[in-house]
Amino acid sequence: MDKAEIIKLLEAYSQGKLNQDDAAEKLSALGMEELGFATIDTDRYRRTGIPEVIYSEGKTPQQVAEIAERMHARGIPILATRASREVYDAVEKRIPGTIYYEMARALVYQNEKPVPSEGYIAVVSAGTSDMPASEEAAITAEFLGSRVERIYDVGVAGIHRLFHRAELIRNASVVIVVAGMEGALASVIGGLVDKPVIGVPCSAGYGANFGGVSALLSMLNSCANGVSVVNIDNGFGAACQAHLIVKTKK
Amino acid sequence: MDKAEIIKLLEAYSQGKLNQDDAAEKLSALGMEELGFATIDTDRYRRTGIPEVIYSEGKTPQQVAEIAERMHARGIPILATRASREVYDAVEKRIPGTIYYEMARALVYQNEKPVPSEGYIAVVSAGTSDMPASEEAAITAEFLGSRVERIYDVGVAGIHRLFHRAELIRNASVVIVVAGMEGALASVIGGLVDKPVIGVPCSAGYGANFGGVSALLSMLNSCANGVSVVNIDNGFGAACQAHLIVKTKK
Amino acid sequence: MDKAEIIKLLEAYSQGKLNQDDAAEKLSALGMEELGFATIDTDRYRRTGIPEVIYSEGKTPQQVAEIAERMHARGIPILATRASREVYDAVEKRIPGTIYYEMARALVYQNEKPVPSEGYIAVVSAGTSDMPASEEAAITAEFLGSRVERIYDVGVAGIHRLFHRAELIRNASVVIVVAGMEGALASVIGGLVDKPVIGVPCSAGYGANFGGVSALLSMLNSCANGVSVVNIDNGFGAACQAHLIVKTKK
Amino acid sequence: MDKAEIIKLLEAYSQGKLNQDDAAEKLSALGMEELGFATIDTDRYRRTGIPEVIYSEGKTPQQVAEIAERMHARGIPILATRASREVYDAVEKRIPGTIYYEMARALVYQNEKPVPSEGYIAVVSAGTSDMPASEEAAITAEFLGSRVERIYDVGVAGIHRLFHRAELIRNASVVIVVAGMEGALASVIGGLVDKPVIGVPCSAGYGANFGGVSALLSMLNSCANGVSVVNIDNGFGAACQAHLIVKTKK
Amino acid sequence: MDKAEIIKLLEAYSQGKLNQDDAAEKLSALGMEELGFATIDTDRYRRTGIPEVIYSEGKTPQQVAEIAERMHARGIPILATRASREVYDAVEKRIPGTIYYEMARALVYQNEKPVPSEGYIAVVSAGTSDMPASEEAAITAEFLGSRVERIYDVGVAGIHRLFHRAELIRNASVVIVVAGMEGALASVIGGLVDKPVIGVPCSAGYGANFGGVSALLSMLNSCANGVSVVNIDNGFGAACQAHLIVKTKK
Amino acid sequence: MDKAEIIKLLEAYSQGKLNQDDAAEKLSALGMEELGFATIDTDRYRRTGIPEVIYSEGKTPQQVAEIAERMHARGIPILATRASREVYDAVEKRIPGTIYYEMARALVYQNEKPVPSEGYIAVVSAGTSDMPASEEAAITAEFLGSRVERIYDVGVAGIHRLFHRAELIRNASVVIVVAGMEGALASVIGGLVDKPVIGVPCSAGYGANFGGVSALLSMLNSCANGVSVVNIDNGFGAACQAHLIVKTKK
Amino acid sequence: MDKAEIIKLLEAYSQGKLNQDDAAEKLSALGMEELGFATIDTDRYRRTGIPEVIYSEGKTPQQVAEIAERMHARGIPILATRASREVYDAVEKRIPGTIYYEMARALVYQNEKPVPSEGYIAVVSAGTSDMPASEEAAITAEFLGSRVERIYDVGVAGIHRLFHRAELIRNASVVIVVAGMEGALASVIGGLVDKPVIGVPCSAGYGANFGGVSALLSMLNSCANGVSVVNIDNGFGAACQAHLIVKTKK
Amino acid sequence: MDKAEIIKLLEAYSQGKLNQDDAAEKLSALGMEELGFATIDTDRYRRTGIPEVIYSEGKTPQQVAEIAERMHARGIPILATRASREVYDAVEKRIPGTIYYEMARALVYQNEKPVPSEGYIAVVSAGTSDMPASEEAAITAEFLGSRVERIYDVGVAGIHRLFHRAELIRNASVVIVVAGMEGALASVIGGLVDKPVIGVPCSAGYGANFGGVSALLSMLNSCANGVSVVNIDNGFGAACQAHLIVKTKK
Repeated sequence: MDKAEIIKLLEAYSQGKLNQDDAAEKLSALGMEELGFATIDTDRYRRTGIPEVIYSEGKTPQQVAEIAERMHARGIPILATRASREVYDAVEKRIPGTIYYEMARALVYQNEKPVPSEGYIAVVSAGTSDMPASEEAAITAEFLGSRVERIYDVGVAGIHRLFHRAELIRNASVVIVVAGMEGALASVIGGLVDKPVIGVPCSAGYGANFGGVSALLSMLNSCANGVSVVNIDNGFGAACQAHLIVKTKK
Repeated sequence: MDKAEIIKLLEAYSQGKLNQDDAAEKLSALGMEELGFATIDTDRYRRTGIPEVIYSEGKTPQQVAEIAERMHARGIPILATRASREVYDAVEKRIPGTIYYEMARALVYQNEKPVPSEGYIAVVSAGTSDMPASEEAAITAEFLGSRVERIYDVGVAGIHRLFHRAELIRNASVVIVVAGMEGALASVIGGLVDKPVIGVPCSAGYGANFGGVSALLSMLNSCANGVSVVNIDNGFGAACQAHLIVKTKK
Repeated sequence: MDKAEIIKLLEAYSQGKLNQDDAAEKLSALGMEELGFATIDTDRYRRTGIPEVIYSEGKTPQQVAEIAERMHARGIPILATRASREVYDAVEKRIPGTIYYEMARALVYQNEKPVPSEGYIAVVSAGTSDMPASEEAAITAEFLGSRVERIYDVGVAGIHRLFHRAELIRNASVVIVVAGMEGALASVIGGLVDKPVIGVPCSAGYGANFGGVSALLSMLNSCANGVSVVNIDNGFGAACQAHLIVKTKK
Repeated sequence: MDKAEIIKLLEAYSQGKLNQDDAAEKLSALGMEELGFATIDTDRYRRTGIPEVIYSEGKTPQQVAEIAERMHARGIPILATRASREVYDAVEKRIPGTIYYEMARALVYQNEKPVPSEGYIAVVSAGTSDMPASEEAAITAEFLGSRVERIYDVGVAGIHRLFHRAELIRNASVVIVVAGMEGALASVIGGLVDKPVIGVPCSAGYGANFGGVSALLSMLNSCANGVSVVNIDNGFGAACQAHLIVKTKK
Repeated sequence: MDKAEIIKLLEAYSQGKLNQDDAAEKLSALGMEELGFATIDTDRYRRTGIPEVIYSEGKTPQQVAEIAERMHARGIPILATRASREVYDAVEKRIPGTIYYEMARALVYQNEKPVPSEGYIAVVSAGTSDMPASEEAAITAEFLGSRVERIYDVGVAGIHRLFHRAELIRNASVVIVVAGMEGALASVIGGLVDKPVIGVPCSAGYGANFGGVSALLSMLNSCANGVSVVNIDNGFGAACQAHLIVKTKK
Repeated sequence: MDKAEIIKLLEAYSQGKLNQDDAAEKLSALGMEELGFATIDTDRYRRTGIPEVIYSEGKTPQQVAEIAERMHARGIPILATRASREVYDAVEKRIPGTIYYEMARALVYQNEKPVPSEGYIAVVSAGTSDMPASEEAAITAEFLGSRVERIYDVGVAGIHRLFHRAELIRNASVVIVVAGMEGALASVIGGLVDKPVIGVPCSAGYGANFGGVSALLSMLNSCANGVSVVNIDNGFGAACQAHLIVKTKK
Repeated sequence: MDKAEIIKLLEAYSQGKLNQDDAAEKLSALGMEELGFATIDTDRYRRTGIPEVIYSEGKTPQQVAEIAERMHARGIPILATRASREVYDAVEKRIPGTIYYEMARALVYQNEKPVPSEGYIAVVSAGTSDMPASEEAAITAEFLGSRVERIYDVGVAGIHRLFHRAELIRNASVVIVVAGMEGALASVIGGLVDKPVIGVPCSAGYGANFGGVSALLSMLNSCANGVSVVNIDNGFGAACQAHLIVKTKK
Repeated sequence: MDKAEIIKLLEAYSQGKLNQDDAAEKLSALGMEELGFATIDTDRYRRTGIPEVIYSEGKTPQQVAEIAERMHARGIPILATRASREVYDAVEKRIPGTIYYEMARALVYQNEKPVPSEGYIAVVSAGTSDMPASEEAAITAEFLGSRVERIYDVGVAGIHRLFHRAELIRNASVVIVVAGMEGALASVIGGLVDKPVIGVPCSAGYGANFGGVSALLSMLNSCANGVSVVNIDNGFGAACQAHLIVKTKK
């Protein structure tokens, strides 16, 4: 845990504000709050720079709405990913002003937009079927406070389209490349820029695509240096890492 | 079987040159010759346009040399693939003049070079570790009588190298693309040319490359049209198909 | 890009018809046109010999119809693959005269049929459940301008059916073999003809078929030379490559 | 266990030849003999029609020789599979007259050859690299007392070779088909005969062959009825089942 | 093809009943009949001992009914596997008297039951969820003319249930073992009987069962000799091979 | 079988209360009862300490209700796992008082609760999506008579939550760890306690999670000692083993 | 960490024996000792009941010997697994009296044997090739202080051998079942005893055994309750868990 | 390519310093130099921030030495990864002063050390068998000019070791986590820091580890946000991305 907090507790104890038992208990319970069916990680934002986000898959609209309401009551900004329109309707009824991003399958409520970062994230996609993961990445990054530039549908089957946008990609602080099928775009971009590239393999495709495994393996085996990979269709995860990189630049 | 040969046999039979039993037997044994441990397919070249070729893996140098000698005695030109230097030494002792191609792991004996084809095959490789399969393809194609242009080490990590050679690739009758790792080169070339592209995934790489599976899946899922694939490291197979395509052009 | 186009731009520039900035911009934007949610590859047909084709899976009928309409406005002939009847209805309302091929799950609009090629593609299938991929291949090839001969339901469980049609297969310029289950037909035909054979593994089957992986591996490991493979159920891709081969023959 | 033996024990007990304790013990220990590091299954031949056979892989020559000697002392005929020449040398020193079959990697000692069966097993192989498994099957079957006909190197790349031998295959009681690569031969033969066909997939091949998985899946997905499969390279297992089928025919 | 038929044609030809062209044509078309969308294998029963059977999956009720009607018109007995009740209703309307076996998902029409075989097939299953494949095997075998004994729900979790039925299993001519989950039953029975054992791995189970792969691998790796395997859930295939074995016994 | 029962039968026989045939029959049928479509294992509880439990997946509500009723009639307590609400409704109609646990997808009927064990099982879960398997484990364990402590939602993304509950986990007799995604929780707990840890990998997750395979492999490769694993989502199986361990402690 | 230790530190601090900085430092460094290339976990035995054990694979004999010597100097008993004879020689030179168990590939040094446990672990193996993992389990368990009974070579191919030893297995506190090939033994024993069963899948086997995956899947899918599994060949891990279970029994 | 270079060429051309042909050629050949067997990417450092690095696997010591010498002649600093001591000896003979890092299997020659970065990379490893990949990452990062802190052997089996070093990890600009087996360390650290975490799965482990696949899947499925992954054992790739992140911080 936080040494500063440990020292604060030691001081309270030495000043008699805490008896021995309470000091031992508090020392072992630093940074968490129990809550019936869940153990809320109140410390997450301080620790990881990313607040709690609601992953909607496998939850009923009611469940998502309840969690969102509870977070809203504490003033926490809300992002729910993999959210259907039904989920959105349930949340919006309780928290008016919530916005739904259909393509990203995400809903967002923020009292005020965060001040945009100086550097930006380039979100580059290979084709139109990569849009859901691309938009999940873009919306997440903007929610977290990073500036985003979208460069879509520039896959390697017509590679000159990519070269035309090269400058915008090169000037980003970090590049997220979203691609299904053979995922070649990550390697091509990795060979063109001097910025970290995060690959998001997409499940788009068929046959021996195996639900995104083909693109995943391609990106893991990229012949270009400086490319790392997140889980299949995990635009959210890529945006989290990209945001942490952008934050660094100050 | 060949209808022409059937008719010839029927004529011989109707003219009494063959009795009924012999005719039935000959009709059922057309185009093959039995030979102790093997059943030689004497008809293969006529049927498939590709003569018998010796695959050396799993055979002793002695065995390869014996087969080569027997074929040589019948005047058949000799190509042995996956041949070590030991295999070459054994063959060369019996058939002086045999040539060894170290990088391709192939040995060749031809009384006279075939007349080179008008069109040519472009063999394009991504990196230096793709050389063995590339050279197996190139040597096989030349053995069969196709003209070959080699364009090596032009992988997508430095894609401008590829564009510089684009014209040579575009003017080929068919393109063989040899690539390991993520195999992106096949898609990039498939998007640049109007010729059939045959991908040869290579086992070069490590970790989640899985002995070439990564490149194999990439090529099968290519976002570019007109790309087909052969088995991992199978430069020989790619050259056979490419040669049949080149032959068409007349 | 095209050297001819580069030279034309250089001339315009040296003649003062283009200032330096415009020349640099035009040189870097050759052959592409940006369009809101998509970056159209106007150069694809010139480059690859295959025009843009609409892959309908994962698109709404409305989206397919819009894309088709826009292409139609530019006079581009239209092929949409993996198209349901709903997709067809949406397109036909906007482009009367569009034809639907139910078995192939494809829709086509062409002002005039292309002049059929001299050589032809033989599309050979093993069983009736291989019909969708077979017809996708056949319709695509005809759309591109290749002549097609269909030889269906001649799998190896009753191999004499195949031999009866052998001549029609042998006289093709290229053979597409469509087979599910164990995919043995590709090897058998590969051993009978001197033409390139392109295998299309089918997902038809059950149990340890693994959605077409069994047939895919069979075809990749074919003991016959001159066989290459495309993705599972990818009749479209096979037809593209076959068409590029047929075009060669002139 | 054997009801007859149970009744014999009950009689002995009721006649006072066995006290209660001994009867209970003997009833629970029927058909087995403990032996230090191993528990010999003395009952196996009676139960399954196949005697104990020594699988040599992972055993030292000394260990195989000891087991063989012990069996020999009891008059049990000896078959050791996957036996190297070193294993043979160790055994032959103790049991002169033992015969080594190099291609089958098997050694055999039998006081007298069993009377050959009336029906026979056809062992059919696709290529020369399938010889080890084919010979393991053939030698095992002959050791067990079945008559064997070998039909080797008749793979589908030159399928007329197979048709020429069709009659010999059709007249067998059961057919063992040994094939690597794409294993298509099992389906082709399954479509030609009215006898049970047992497929032995071979690890021969490379790349996406995956050590025999390609042939295994092919045979499991055979479009021909009446085909079953044993483990990769398991010529021994195929021979055991084939022998049990041949025995039936009397 | 059949030598007898070849000889008959040669005689007709030599007697002038056939001219040369017709003789050549008839020789190459032996044993097949073309039929629009399908190439009927009229020769299959003579060749393989198993008549054509309709696999209903992926066919509409109408298609199955049409095929069944056409076969019925030629007097061929009808078995359709993987048939839903809708399929049955469509067939029964055209061929009254057709019987539906719900558990086996099979429908049968036979003018007269075949004379039951002397030997019988034991169909042994591990649990109640293995019933569909077990019944598919049993109904198929009876349709083909083999006598069947069913021994169900005797899996190894309560192995004494199996031993109680051991005699009935041992006296069979061949044993079909149907089991999902870990498929251990095949090995246990293989160690108890001297008859061929055919394993049918079932997709019943969950998690790391992988749709039957667990049972499939178990049976392929059986430590008992004389066990072979068919595809997952393929009760039909197991019955075909078992029937061919039973037929042998005369 | 049970030696005691054998001896009882021998005594009855020697006293003439049983004739020889009956004794032999009874000796071979010990501990089982045949019942039409199923062979009931009446001996299971005595043998394994776990009574018969109904696995509802793949059974109709009617079938589950019938089995439950029959067991109820014999006074056997009832647990049905993987039970939908429809299944519950069907059972409750016949056995009023049956309780449904929605999250666990389980229904239970017990005349009287078993006396709770002295030691207890700690069921620890990583996140809320692991609840179904966690509750299946907890309800099963309580049904069998083990005391349970639930510690939910303490995954490693916020690891201090776990440490706060460490004492409760350490004092358990055995720990069940339920986790999806990367399943790291099992290793972390395995490194903290001196009790057996049983891992239940969950199918919760997406992409390269492969339906729980990721967590399964993690747990099998745990760097902590004393961790074993059950099948994916198999809370029931984990509870059975944990209960057998708790029972030991007396 | 240990609350007791925290309290001790708090007391020392409140009594002025520790200043604030030292207290904070000591509180955060409880239970660990840094050591150049390694961070020794001095707390492991107290926490997990299993001391540090040396896994020799991938270490040079010298490295193992050094670690062993250092542990010996602290009076820690030594167990090194996966140790070759070369490793043993290096260790024995420094720590005379070390014992080598060849079959288990393990070396052990203990000043005094631990007092044997009351309950015992039954280590049951299917065949002789399962001996290495079986002995690794047995030696490890004895090293930790558990009594062990070995029941070897009682696989299901001759299942009566198992029944003869059933009583010894049933009376154990926990059963370790070691089996390769199809791993059926775990299920059979799981159905016979009321004790926890831990399966150790072995890599023994060939072909579709896939290095132990076949047995691993079998055991994970066991139809018997109360069976859990450890990694392939991981006799050590099974013994750790079994020992923790035996310890419970007091 | 670089617009600046295009403009320079246009100016030269407009000033008559270049004729039209030369201008067109130079425009298409920007940034590359052909060199017999390889096409050197002279532009890579400018483009990607990472210079050419020699991957030694699959190259002879002679080949590596030649490439190194040629690079040295151009003043390029040298890093060769996966280099054996033989490779080192060959290089050092030609370029005295080259340093070999045995654990990292890397050799380095730099005229002057780069100025170390302000921020630093934390390289954290789970166990001693993860050292090779950890050191490859550390040496690579230092070669590129990043400051590195090594925190080794702090895996989750003794997680308090990790917490003790938490501050050093938290203050890094980016964290590389190297772990084999179940790879849980990446998730645990991802949950503790607000910096990007790059996971390097290691092939260390055995059995169901599958050469690092277990750790790879774990890291891809990490429940902590902000974690991305590189290929198995790819310490080099992780260092490249980490270095690009560190460079950002200025």
